[in-house]
Amino acid sequence: MKMTGERLWIAALGGVYEIGKNMYLLQYADDIIVIDCGSKFPDESLLGIDLIIPDISYLLSNTDKVKALVVTHGHEDHIGGIPYFLKQLNIPVYASRLTLGLIETKLKEHGLLRQTQLHCIDPDSTLNFGSIAITFFRTNHSIPDCLGIVFDTPEGTVVHTGDFKFDMTPVNKQYPDIHKMAAIGEKGVKFLLSESTNAERPGFTPSERLVGSHLEEAFHKAENRIFISTFASNVHRLQQIVDAAGHTGRKLALLGRSMVNVVGVAQELGYLNIPEGMLVEPAEAGKMERGRIAVLCTGSQGEPMAALSRLANSSHRQLEISEGDTVLLAANPIPGNERNVSRIVDNLYMLGARVIYGSRSELHVSGHGSQEELKLMLTLMKPEYFIPIHGEYRMLHHHSMLAEAVGVKNENIFILKNGDIVESNAGDVRQSGRITAGQIYVDGLGIGDIGNVVLRDRRQLSADGILITVITLSQNDGRILNDPDTISRGFVYVRNSDTLMEEINQLITSTLQKMSAADLGQWNIIKETIKETLGKFLYERTKRRPMILPIIIEV
Amino acid sequence: MKMTGERLWIAALGGVYEIGKNMYLLQYADDIIVIDCGSKFPDESLLGIDLIIPDISYLLSNTDKVKALVVTHGHEDHIGGIPYFLKQLNIPVYASRLTLGLIETKLKEHGLLRQTQLHCIDPDSTLNFGSIAITFFRTNHSIPDCLGIVFDTPEGTVVHTGDFKFDMTPVNKQYPDIHKMAAIGEKGVKFLLSESTNAERPGFTPSERLVGSHLEEAFHKAENRIFISTFASNVHRLQQIVDAAGHTGRKLALLGRSMVNVVGVAQELGYLNIPEGMLVEPAEAGKMERGRIAVLCTGSQGEPMAALSRLANSSHRQLEISEGDTVLLAANPIPGNERNVSRIVDNLYMLGARVIYGSRSELHVSGHGSQEELKLMLTLMKPEYFIPIHGEYRMLHHHSMLAEAVGVKNENIFILKNGDIVESNAGDVRQSGRITAGQIYVDGLGIGDIGNVVLRDRRQLSADGILITVITLSQNDGRILNDPDTISRGFVYVRNSDTLMEEINQLITSTLQKMSAADLGQWNIIKETIKETLGKFLYERTKRRPMILPIIIEV
Repeated sequence: MKMTGERLWIAALGGVYEIGKNMYLLQYADDIIVIDCGSKFPDESLLGIDLIIPDISYLLSNTDKVKALVVTHGHEDHIGGIPYFLKQLNIPVYASRLTLGLIETKLKEHGLLRQTQLHCIDPDSTLNFGSIAITFFRTNHSIPDCLGIVFDTPEGTVVHTGDFKFDMTPVNKQYPDIHKMAAIGEKGVKFLLSESTNAERPGFTPSERLVGSHLEEAFHKAENRIFISTFASNVHRLQQIVDAAGHTGRKLALLGRSMVNVVGVAQELGYLNIPEGMLVEPAEAGKMERGRIAVLCTGSQGEPMAALSRLANSSHRQLEISEGDTVLLAANPIPGNERNVSRIVDNLYMLGARVIYGSRSELHVSGHGSQEELKLMLTLMKPEYFIPIHGEYRMLHHHSMLAEAVGVKNENIFILKNGDIVESNAGDVRQSGRITAGQIYVDGLGIGDIGNVVLRDRRQLSADGILITVITLSQNDGRILNDPDTISRGFVYVRNSDTLMEEINQLITSTLQKMSAADLGQWNIIKETIKETLGKFLYERTKRRPMILPIIIEV
Repeated sequence: MKMTGERLWIAALGGVYEIGKNMYLLQYADDIIVIDCGSKFPDESLLGIDLIIPDISYLLSNTDKVKALVVTHGHEDHIGGIPYFLKQLNIPVYASRLTLGLIETKLKEHGLLRQTQLHCIDPDSTLNFGSIAITFFRTNHSIPDCLGIVFDTPEGTVVHTGDFKFDMTPVNKQYPDIHKMAAIGEKGVKFLLSESTNAERPGFTPSERLVGSHLEEAFHKAENRIFISTFASNVHRLQQIVDAAGHTGRKLALLGRSMVNVVGVAQELGYLNIPEGMLVEPAEAGKMERGRIAVLCTGSQGEPMAALSRLANSSHRQLEISEGDTVLLAANPIPGNERNVSRIVDNLYMLGARVIYGSRSELHVSGHGSQEELKLMLTLMKPEYFIPIHGEYRMLHHHSMLAEAVGVKNENIFILKNGDIVESNAGDVRQSGRITAGQIYVDGLGIGDIGNVVLRDRRQLSADGILITVITLSQNDGRILNDPDTISRGFVYVRNSDTLMEEINQLITSTLQKMSAADLGQWNIIKETIKETLGKFLYERTKRRPMILPIIIEV
């Protein structure tokens, strides 16, 4: 679809009907501004896939119009796709200082740092791209330096909240810009795009300081070593852990690459204040008095290769957990990770550790505003039109009900799918057409080379394995030269299945013998006949459906 | 290990360090009594496995001693393994009426009903097996007719609680036998085996009646059709749903095989009281006035093939959900099922349904006692020795702390692994040796034929697929007759990878050319060389590790 007249388009390339890979765009005439470019982790059905990123075809076919990528904050679901995006389209990136620091780490890994134009912004910055002027407001979230974005366009003001909660007692004293938000709303907001993560949750999300007080308590009670795991990017929480360590006279060791990375960036940029001499190397920590050390580690989601998992399995090279140590899990499991986290808790108890975990421990609060905060944002902004973003459908649905409850007209609320366009043309607003949007799978070095065929094959292989049978035909007369040679993997254990494999070979031989010379001349017919006959036989005998792969060799 | 003297053994064959496949045994001299024989669903790492059942090798090598299988209640994790067990060892089964009804359904499916000796017991029954006398007490749980078991042995009294909560206002008015439990405890309990599912949860689990009052409310508010999904086996809840339908003048339709089965058995045996004429066929329900029908369906755990999932996808053959219908999810997702359930909720909202779900809806209460109830059981029984059962390690750990808190000596608490034996010999109690215990995988018709090799292959196949290359050698001189023929599945999409496949074939050819005639004579060397060379090349090129399967054909 091509843009012809001068009208405003708003669309999501990722982030709605899902949690993850946030990417939104605004277009007025020839100016496209992109907001965020996140990645998403695959669910268990996407076998072997490492990462999912947004499909940016629309931007690639409008390269001359794409003016900037503006980033709200430094979480993976907002920055994880940036290197893949910039490799295809080198546009300037605008982000606040910490966000930029985290983006730089990624660009370095992908060898893109030198060629990228990075611009540091803050809540007071103003940007101008043709017909669109951009200002910002500060929000609170589980990472510092988060921005909401205000777009002034000929069709009116568009506000994108980024991720937010209203933490009135923020750890870093960066208070939310409530007065600014009120002024924006007072001036008039045509479109509000607001995040929906906690739209199902009543009430008001507690301040991050609540975690701080429980951390302090846990540190004071602990006698031997303390191991504490949390999201590396939650710099507020890291600061509170540093503070608790300081108050109880403990040194701090870091385990895990992302923890070392984030602490490095946050400390360098002044977002994390660690007293001189507090940080020690893991090897040194292992030699220190047990009551004098705290270990901050990755793996709070039960990731099998992360530090906490290795510690729980007693397979970490530098440190071990033993009787009387305390382990604090300062993170709730993200849906899908519950079992892995539970397994770690089990293992930690077996090692004799005291484990403090679960929602009752209050070592975690959400970074996203609950219903009262979403209503507060809606009330401050008083938008004429509302587009709930950043959430699965039920979250968008609940958020739209909240919007209606605070006075947005039902017909002015748009629940969009990725790719759906909301258009404003001389004040006439409606949903109008689609641009390309989708999921691109990253698997190893391959980007987008894994599609449904490969995934369907992986699913079949994973459930019932594969049975390969090689049939050798004579080049001269099409005669079968050999007994079939059949091999299976992931189907049955061969030692248990000698008779079965023999029966399979006999069945193939007799099937081939029954075929006419004409059919034997057509390889497709041979393959289909073998697949069908063998498939039926195997299902009857085993109630399994392995992939059957006849290979014909002509010699 | 053989049993020589006359001593009491207590062991778990399943159910500890896990949730699922409960199976415990008591042995005194030549009398073995088995308690429960459950199954367990595989986690996502056990690709393609349908079910897990306990390893009963120990019982099979002591067939003459196994006197009876006594079953505490009719949940899958207590009865799901029975058909597999009885196929190998035909022993009498003792269970209460509803439990027996559910076991009979299973035995019918496996063609075992006629040959099995089934004995109906109730809380007042007494059984005698040589040196062991057995009595029972009634407990409450999320299915009727649950029993705790008391074993009188020459080494003292052993109590096995089965699954329980203390519901003082049970829906079916089968009150827990508290006075009997008190009398048992007063007489003296040597060993208590008590279930640990909710040992991490403080407080007291609410009565099932709480759900009833919320169901009534939801039924009164609903205008169009009501769809309600819960565990089929929760007959108490089914009764409350029937009652709510009755009070609001709705007919009831049943969807899903297990719902139809359980309702059939429970109704026939008098555990479920459905007014004459209330049940209607789904096809008929589809034609009725929308405000006059409620549909009770399976699939509360998001099972993709179950009724609720089909309804949510608009792919059910008989009924559809539309704007203004109400869907009640009267079950919490079991850990691991959250994503599937969320997906269904999303789909239901997209259909325009009102959806009532999640813990805040209070349409579900646990069937397991929380910490105060576990302490009440411990207090009533006053055991000298305590063995927490039915739980993952952290639950057993918390339960043992509760036992200590109410006065059981720390050294008298045994946290057992499956197979660990607690022995009592003339009053001398200690943990002593092991019997065989483990997981047997059921995959299709195969029982125990899938082991670690097959699973490891399935894992590799699922992540990166397979690459098969056929090499044809001359029978006469070992010469290579053909270009290699290479096929991949689940690795890369072929249309994207023509060059890659060509490079692979060239690499194989050049690798073979470089090999000495002597090496070419040894197929293992050819295969290993190809695997290594190709594996390295593919990892460098794709960062993937497909299974590489060279097949050598001699013609």
